[in-house]
Amino acid sequence: MRTDLCDLLGVDHPIVGFSPSEHVVAAISRAGGFGVLGCVRFNDAAELDTVLTWLDRATEGRPYGVDVVMPGKVPTEGLPADLGELIPPGHRDFVERTLQRLGVPPLGAASDRPGVLGWLHSVARSHVEVALQHPVRLIANALGPPPPDVIAQAHDRGLLVAALAGRADHARGHVAAGVDIVVAQGYEAGGHTGEIASMVLVPEVVDAVGVPVLAAGGIGSGRQIAAALALGARGVWMGSVWLGSSEYRSGPALREALLQAGSSDTVRSRIYSGKPARLLRNRWTEAWSESDAPAPLPMPLQNLLVSGAHDRLMASGDPTVVPMPVGQIVGRMNEVRPVSAILTDLVTEADETLSQIHKLL
Amino acid sequence: MRTDLCDLLGVDHPIVGFSPSEHVVAAISRAGGFGVLGCVRFNDAAELDTVLTWLDRATEGRPYGVDVVMPGKVPTEGLPADLGELIPPGHRDFVERTLQRLGVPPLGAASDRPGVLGWLHSVARSHVEVALQHPVRLIANALGPPPPDVIAQAHDRGLLVAALAGRADHARGHVAAGVDIVVAQGYEAGGHTGEIASMVLVPEVVDAVGVPVLAAGGIGSGRQIAAALALGARGVWMGSVWLGSSEYRSGPALREALLQAGSSDTVRSRIYSGKPARLLRNRWTEAWSESDAPAPLPMPLQNLLVSGAHDRLMASGDPTVVPMPVGQIVGRMNEVRPVSAILTDLVTEADETLSQIHKLL
Repeated sequence: MRTDLCDLLGVDHPIVGFSPSEHVVAAISRAGGFGVLGCVRFNDAAELDTVLTWLDRATEGRPYGVDVVMPGKVPTEGLPADLGELIPPGHRDFVERTLQRLGVPPLGAASDRPGVLGWLHSVARSHVEVALQHPVRLIANALGPPPPDVIAQAHDRGLLVAALAGRADHARGHVAAGVDIVVAQGYEAGGHTGEIASMVLVPEVVDAVGVPVLAAGGIGSGRQIAAALALGARGVWMGSVWLGSSEYRSGPALREALLQAGSSDTVRSRIYSGKPARLLRNRWTEAWSESDAPAPLPMPLQNLLVSGAHDRLMASGDPTVVPMPVGQIVGRMNEVRPVSAILTDLVTEADETLSQIHKLL
Repeated sequence: MRTDLCDLLGVDHPIVGFSPSEHVVAAISRAGGFGVLGCVRFNDAAELDTVLTWLDRATEGRPYGVDVVMPGKVPTEGLPADLGELIPPGHRDFVERTLQRLGVPPLGAASDRPGVLGWLHSVARSHVEVALQHPVRLIANALGPPPPDVIAQAHDRGLLVAALAGRADHARGHVAAGVDIVVAQGYEAGGHTGEIASMVLVPEVVDAVGVPVLAAGGIGSGRQIAAALALGARGVWMGSVWLGSSEYRSGPALREALLQAGSSDTVRSRIYSGKPARLLRNRWTEAWSESDAPAPLPMPLQNLLVSGAHDRLMASGDPTVVPMPVGQIVGRMNEVRPVSAILTDLVTEADETLSQIHKLL
């Protein structure tokens, strides 16, 4: 299958693949898709610069993009230490108590990370500045349109700007702000997500805007890609599916948790970042639903609160506590395969589906 | 478009239309779809008998079906008066206080309905017994497979049995119990619904069972029908869309509320029946989220609790309080049209979509 998105992005298949892993991103672009690197994990812009320099070679001349997280409303700023003072002691007590109850050991002294700062406007801006020094084809923003000057800078350099939307009115606002591609992200998606399911959201956004729309949320197979095209999307934006690729270098606990999980084993919650995000449901997420659990804090405080806990949960090696954003298609992730094999299967099944359903006419 | 479902049901289009209104059901069947009458509102089996006798003529020889509500676990039984004693006084106080706060006047003395009893196993059984006296083609159950003897009776008379499922493992259980057609109902659907969105649920159920699957939830246009077929469904089950038909004889308040609502204006809540169901979001549903609101009661007590309130809310003529199950596709319902016009548009758009996306190959 080919759509106008293929020409716009310069790729063989209308499949955009998001991943925090540069290894996954490079493999997607090399296989004829469009890889997009999630930047939120880079507290240090210099580290992102190094990774993008690697990507410039590893993509072998194929186009790729970056994804930053710039909330529409600029959130509380400050150094981690200052922000930390805004976290109520009761919240810290709950986190520590819960980790102990779940049998999650402390880390060594060397592991004192400040938490994920990529949610901060200033840090996301530093990501954009670094990205503009590299031959990226697209800048996507996970939380609506980037500020006007960022859009203008990107357009001046011939880059495309994409923005995620969970509602048609938001999508209209994104396009009015100058966004070139809207990613309509349904309820079933992993990570930050809204209330409207892809089946309803995608055609609504397609009808609301005059730019190409990518369907995100619930896309993990070729049939789902064909369905997205039927809904009027010009392509798909897939994130969760690559967590099951051999290029995604996760520890064995996360891998086991992802392979075991069914489509019912996710939950949409504010405990990860302060905004509703879909996560793998497990003993850690369930603890936040119990009667002694406090309400999650607003972004960026909630992630600062749980960031150290996330490191401990991941390091524990226990698959029943891993903190992981993932969509409902996790139920389809039942074996680990290379990105190129996943992508070939997606394209083959989508083509077969388009061919088969045409016979119903 | 045609699928094997058309032959199985004896219809022109693979579109099953559910409605509590016999006028809508007759119009769907006459227009080449398959109308299914929701029976839960009939407290009196004799009343259902009268309506089915009318339908036998009004469908003009076209096939139709009925939908009953038999929970998998037989719930608390008893007369309304006995059951009423199980309702805590605090719940009754909250309902009365809320109606007053919302400005909803009391009804006259003539309006003392006992509440909807169709949730009761015994009442649902009386629906089945009546239906078996009529030339219905299909019995659907909204809450899983009917009891074995009901399935056996239906099969003995050459009827098909359908059951709704919100998870693949439930669907497998339905088919093991003898169900002929599974309705995979996604999160975005109106009324009782699960957590998994149609985009993920439909292919999962298709892969799990060897019987035809209908996609329900989020289907309100021909593009959505084409998407459902891409996901492997052999047809669709649509409910909400007919609430916007001229044959659905609602009052002006409900009609205005449905026409005004966007896809964000629904909420999934236990306040209607005791089980999670998607409703139009309004001042009534929001009141149950406030700090003084009690937790909803289990089925069938919750509906007995709110049934009188529902009558008052409907009679108030206030579009901001109507109690109404509806799916997220309510955002597409922007004008009132005859069922036949809605159905023609669905078929035309689905055919066009199948044709257009084939050109992407």
